[in-house]
Amino acid sequence: MWRLTQNYYTPSRQVIEESLFMVGNGYVGVRGCFEEGYPSGDTIRGTYINGLFDRVPMQHAEMAYGLPIVQDKQPRIADTQTCKIWLDDEPVQLIEGKFETYYRHLDYHKGTSERSYVFMTSSGYKGHLKFTRMASLVNPHLFLYRIEVIYDGAIRLESVLEGGVENYSNPADPRTGAGHTKLMTILKLGHTDAESFVTLETSNTNLQQATVVKHMVYSDAPVDISYASETSAIHTTVEGKQHLVLEKLCAFTDSLRFENPTEAAFEMLAHEDVSNLEKRQVNYLDEYWRLADIEIEGNMRDQRAVRFMMYQLLQSVGTDAFSNISAKGLSGEGYEGHYFWDTEIYVIPILLINQPERVKHLLEYRARILDAARQRALELGHEKGAAYAWRTISGIECSGYFPAGTAQYHINADIAHAFIQYYLYTEDINFLVGTGVEVILETARIWMEIGNFKDGLFHIHSVTGPDEYTAIVNDNYYTNAMAKYHLKWAHDLYQMLGASLDPTIKTQFEALRVKLNMNAEEVEHMLAASNQMYLPYDDQLGIYAQDANFLKKPVWPFENENFQKRPLLLHYHPLTIYRHQVLKQADTILAHFMLEEYADEASIFRGFDYYEQITTHDSSLSSCIYGIMAARRGNRDKAYAYFEDSVMLDLEDRHGNTKDGLHMANISGTVLTLLAGFAGFRHKDDGLHLRPILPKDWTGYSFNIRYRNRLISVRVTERIHLALKVGAPMEIKVYGQSVQLTKACDVDMKRE
Amino acid sequence: MWRLTQNYYTPSRQVIEESLFMVGNGYVGVRGCFEEGYPSGDTIRGTYINGLFDRVPMQHAEMAYGLPIVQDKQPRIADTQTCKIWLDDEPVQLIEGKFETYYRHLDYHKGTSERSYVFMTSSGYKGHLKFTRMASLVNPHLFLYRIEVIYDGAIRLESVLEGGVENYSNPADPRTGAGHTKLMTILKLGHTDAESFVTLETSNTNLQQATVVKHMVYSDAPVDISYASETSAIHTTVEGKQHLVLEKLCAFTDSLRFENPTEAAFEMLAHEDVSNLEKRQVNYLDEYWRLADIEIEGNMRDQRAVRFMMYQLLQSVGTDAFSNISAKGLSGEGYEGHYFWDTEIYVIPILLINQPERVKHLLEYRARILDAARQRALELGHEKGAAYAWRTISGIECSGYFPAGTAQYHINADIAHAFIQYYLYTEDINFLVGTGVEVILETARIWMEIGNFKDGLFHIHSVTGPDEYTAIVNDNYYTNAMAKYHLKWAHDLYQMLGASLDPTIKTQFEALRVKLNMNAEEVEHMLAASNQMYLPYDDQLGIYAQDANFLKKPVWPFENENFQKRPLLLHYHPLTIYRHQVLKQADTILAHFMLEEYADEASIFRGFDYYEQITTHDSSLSSCIYGIMAARRGNRDKAYAYFEDSVMLDLEDRHGNTKDGLHMANISGTVLTLLAGFAGFRHKDDGLHLRPILPKDWTGYSFNIRYRNRLISVRVTERIHLALKVGAPMEIKVYGQSVQLTKACDVDMKRE
Repeated sequence: MWRLTQNYYTPSRQVIEESLFMVGNGYVGVRGCFEEGYPSGDTIRGTYINGLFDRVPMQHAEMAYGLPIVQDKQPRIADTQTCKIWLDDEPVQLIEGKFETYYRHLDYHKGTSERSYVFMTSSGYKGHLKFTRMASLVNPHLFLYRIEVIYDGAIRLESVLEGGVENYSNPADPRTGAGHTKLMTILKLGHTDAESFVTLETSNTNLQQATVVKHMVYSDAPVDISYASETSAIHTTVEGKQHLVLEKLCAFTDSLRFENPTEAAFEMLAHEDVSNLEKRQVNYLDEYWRLADIEIEGNMRDQRAVRFMMYQLLQSVGTDAFSNISAKGLSGEGYEGHYFWDTEIYVIPILLINQPERVKHLLEYRARILDAARQRALELGHEKGAAYAWRTISGIECSGYFPAGTAQYHINADIAHAFIQYYLYTEDINFLVGTGVEVILETARIWMEIGNFKDGLFHIHSVTGPDEYTAIVNDNYYTNAMAKYHLKWAHDLYQMLGASLDPTIKTQFEALRVKLNMNAEEVEHMLAASNQMYLPYDDQLGIYAQDANFLKKPVWPFENENFQKRPLLLHYHPLTIYRHQVLKQADTILAHFMLEEYADEASIFRGFDYYEQITTHDSSLSSCIYGIMAARRGNRDKAYAYFEDSVMLDLEDRHGNTKDGLHMANISGTVLTLLAGFAGFRHKDDGLHLRPILPKDWTGYSFNIRYRNRLISVRVTERIHLALKVGAPMEIKVYGQSVQLTKACDVDMKRE
Repeated sequence: MWRLTQNYYTPSRQVIEESLFMVGNGYVGVRGCFEEGYPSGDTIRGTYINGLFDRVPMQHAEMAYGLPIVQDKQPRIADTQTCKIWLDDEPVQLIEGKFETYYRHLDYHKGTSERSYVFMTSSGYKGHLKFTRMASLVNPHLFLYRIEVIYDGAIRLESVLEGGVENYSNPADPRTGAGHTKLMTILKLGHTDAESFVTLETSNTNLQQATVVKHMVYSDAPVDISYASETSAIHTTVEGKQHLVLEKLCAFTDSLRFENPTEAAFEMLAHEDVSNLEKRQVNYLDEYWRLADIEIEGNMRDQRAVRFMMYQLLQSVGTDAFSNISAKGLSGEGYEGHYFWDTEIYVIPILLINQPERVKHLLEYRARILDAARQRALELGHEKGAAYAWRTISGIECSGYFPAGTAQYHINADIAHAFIQYYLYTEDINFLVGTGVEVILETARIWMEIGNFKDGLFHIHSVTGPDEYTAIVNDNYYTNAMAKYHLKWAHDLYQMLGASLDPTIKTQFEALRVKLNMNAEEVEHMLAASNQMYLPYDDQLGIYAQDANFLKKPVWPFENENFQKRPLLLHYHPLTIYRHQVLKQADTILAHFMLEEYADEASIFRGFDYYEQITTHDSSLSSCIYGIMAARRGNRDKAYAYFEDSVMLDLEDRHGNTKDGLHMANISGTVLTLLAGFAGFRHKDDGLHLRPILPKDWTGYSFNIRYRNRLISVRVTERIHLALKVGAPMEIKVYGQSVQLTKACDVDMKRE
């Protein structure tokens, strides 16, 4: 239950398993490639640093003003994975018939991956091999490989530090970005008596990334170690016999975070010891799981999948202001390593519940790129405010197709929403006044730039909502609803901080107000826009309309056999798709989930029934939201069907592209289906809500909620069990009814 | 009045004058570069064949289904222009202080360009030089250069046929298309005793283009001629003295039109004689001007400009089914030599009035690429019908930005409109049944594919109208109005031809009906769509709305100094532009001009006043239409102001890009302002209409109308004088009043 396990080696799946067995810690991610190499088959032999970026040209078939001409791209860094093995001079490879008792684990408690098999030499002798990997969660710059060989004969290992790396490219698949693969050049390469090292530099952004590998050998027999330099690699050869353990302790650093990354990497290796690292890893994870674990009773597959997801989130979420969580985490090269709204809408809601301290870093990243967003707003012709890039690493807009990129202005509200939620969960007013409110106010300004009052209502034209099967529409419901929320909070926070009784807060905010040249009149105008925000509604259908014109279009001819290919985007011209009522992903339904208070329940339920019929879920960000709202709608089996649709997406490679990396938003979204769907968890202005249901073949599930310095445990079976483990008494609403939580007395009540 | 004249040589203007002094005949176009070369300055030394195309890759920053991955590009063909000159071994160049009495003419009567100057050698001797060029209008494959030198000393000429050509590229200006410049490779190159020749092949489409140059020398003194071959060129050296005339008669052919183009080119030169050619050129032009001339009294500048325009139309309009008229004619490389809707909406209306026989070829070209349009319809996901490419040479879609390209479905109706108009002008029912109706019906089908009935009205979603400052809108007025017209005619022609009493017509149409698998039910459905077409109207403003949502957007903040840069497209992001009420060019107003009967006069006039305020005329296709409708509105001075805005566009390089070629739609549109604007010419279901006004500083103007085998002359001064020169009596409406035209008696009436 605490492991991802694979007991067979299947060459055709190796490139997929490289993603699944990725080992990372939010700073560095190493795909699960084999140290000794493969006899054949595809591989993407990548190691990535969160936040590191190069820039490559972006070419448009027809140029227009303000289209980006360069884009960020996450480079592959030096390869530390390779360690070739010879037993009595015979190379060890996983050739059919030459090995047995193969297994690989990703261990969520130990925080390591382990791989082992027995290799049979041509002479019939057996060698026992075991490979262990660990990305330290305590010091994210450290990464350990351990290769253990037991063999009654000569053992030779050749560990390679390869600096001549290129990114993956597949000209046939536009999603992987053909061309521009050579992103790093070698600046320094060499070795000391015990360490090999390489410092690379990105080709266009001149960022440095240093890797130092310290080799440690343990053996009872005599051992010989030698180093050899090649043009782009250092080879470290270890020769011994019988029983040999090679540990490679790597330090990864970069010039975003260190003035002298090479020096810093050497420094780190000088002050860490390995045994201590592994113990601290276990301690770290004990604490992680104590707070963040989600238990499922009665369904082992789902339990395993959800633990896998929570572990992968831990491995990929950035841990400082230089990084975030990219669409594929640190597990692959899909989407160029860019960060999207996935962070704020799919990942942060989970982290807020069980790891709020991680959210702060993700928000600090957004604050760090605020200037880039201000710059982008100017480029877009706005007079003030900040317009966050739809996809980026460094902050610049990297979207090549603006109708489904830059036009998604809603990312501004998505980011503001996350800042507001973080404040409400943590009540961290210092972070709010020092960092958050500047982002909230600057992003709010854009709504006043792109929206306008007409006949007493506030309209927002020419934007694209979350659903990318329509583009450049007027009054997108999701966008308008999120902007309504955003503008209201911008006004309220301005008033609240300006009227603070704490002189430090008041002074700090006053300085910001002056810096932003903002006054009460401006935020009153924002409040008016919020109050008068037009939310398109169709009287005939009794539902909120995705946009002003959406419901006037014909419905996609689902029954026509010429229109049944999936996903639509790979088989139909955008205009054919745009012309119809058809959704790639939740749009109005997502808004109903996030901002339930803007619509009446009956309209939400009718909307769910309506939009569900015309949604293809061609985006991996869709099923999870429909699952949440199916539960809200009271349809337990449908909610579980959506959960089921998402939960095995990567583990079973259901979209056929897990090789390019794990689908992080789907991972987080699936957990959200559990927490916000099955458990009905909501955070509203009046506090926390639960509305638990129990999927048919589960007997129970439990999880923790961390909220304003409290720890609340929730267990749902036939009954609902709530316990306040840490913190002051509070009220929580279950099925809309107030329940008092105190430490003295657990709550045990019947499930509806 | 019959010449474009330039009496000064200005190096900074030479590249512009290359466009203005272009010599062509609808098949071949040779830019007005200097035979002897320039001492310095920019040049685009191009010769082009109408309809010839290569294909180059088109790269998208983000790929989507159905986006074109290659595009057509008009290649530059072999350069025949060069003839270097030495007087007593001193090279002749237009270096300041070394020449006098320079002039250049483009003569509209002789059909030639002439250039002359006196060159002074270092020794103080004078050489008289004269350069003549003629593109034969009688045999469009022939082109003549004549170089005449009078000098009291040794004269040496070196005529070069250069096959190593590349297209123009300016990486800084996206409109000229950087990269992909080497489009032609040399297949054959050589010379005979009197001819040099080169056959080129396009790099990707493998089309051949042959050029043969026959050299003829006239002199009283002895002359020596020699040939030299270089890698990519043939040099023909002529040495003589005193008085030397070199004639280079070129034959241009290509493998689109000839099985063996090289052979065909040699053939042509063997059977033509030069003196005859020049005489026939004059005869041809006498007849052309007799029918097509437009005279303006009282304003020499306008007279000159309009003659220039009529001559340039003649030089660039294709004369066979392989060619059309590209955005820049045959005068440059802008827009890659692509054909747009410019042909049908701007050029054909003029040609219908005075050269209807030319229209047939342009329509035959559209019929020839009908299969490509059918193919494109399938690619776009339509089940039947034909969708013409927004821009193309060979028929394939070459638009790199589909929201302002492929989304302009209106091109289908524009093309059908031209076919219908041609039929109505000529009553050529054989062309209709043999060619036209297939295009009309197949293109009409697309409206049924992309439109839908809702609540009793027919809607067309997700299209872009002529105005490219909005994109992908619903119920664009122009598109819907044109589709309404198109669908009505598709129905009516289907009924008319099916019920024809002529058995040949009936049989031919029945075969087509079977081929298209079309029945009465389908066209009844089309008629219903036409009758129930939704034409968006705003009750409050009392005007037709550009699209369903257009009038709900805020008006462009014209008064805000941050929004005053022009043209908008070079200074603001598309989303900023799309979000506002602001027009690049006439849209609803164009529909009102073309389909006056779909709107009441009061709404049209209010619409004119409204849209005029928010139109930037950033497109060169705009002012002419506003000029026409200003006249219709009764505003003579405003109409003339628009005319004035267009009439000097190329002659004064007002858009700064005449170097890339002449703006053919503006040229034709300006003439349209005169005919449809000042003269108020309309062709409606009830026949011809005039509504003449006289611009303030003109004393009169006159032109001919050719209509159903008639020739009608019109002269407008303080009075209106109409004469039926050829053909049967008919009725014409002047200011809405019926006037009978007979040959016996001219009409002379008062102007309103």
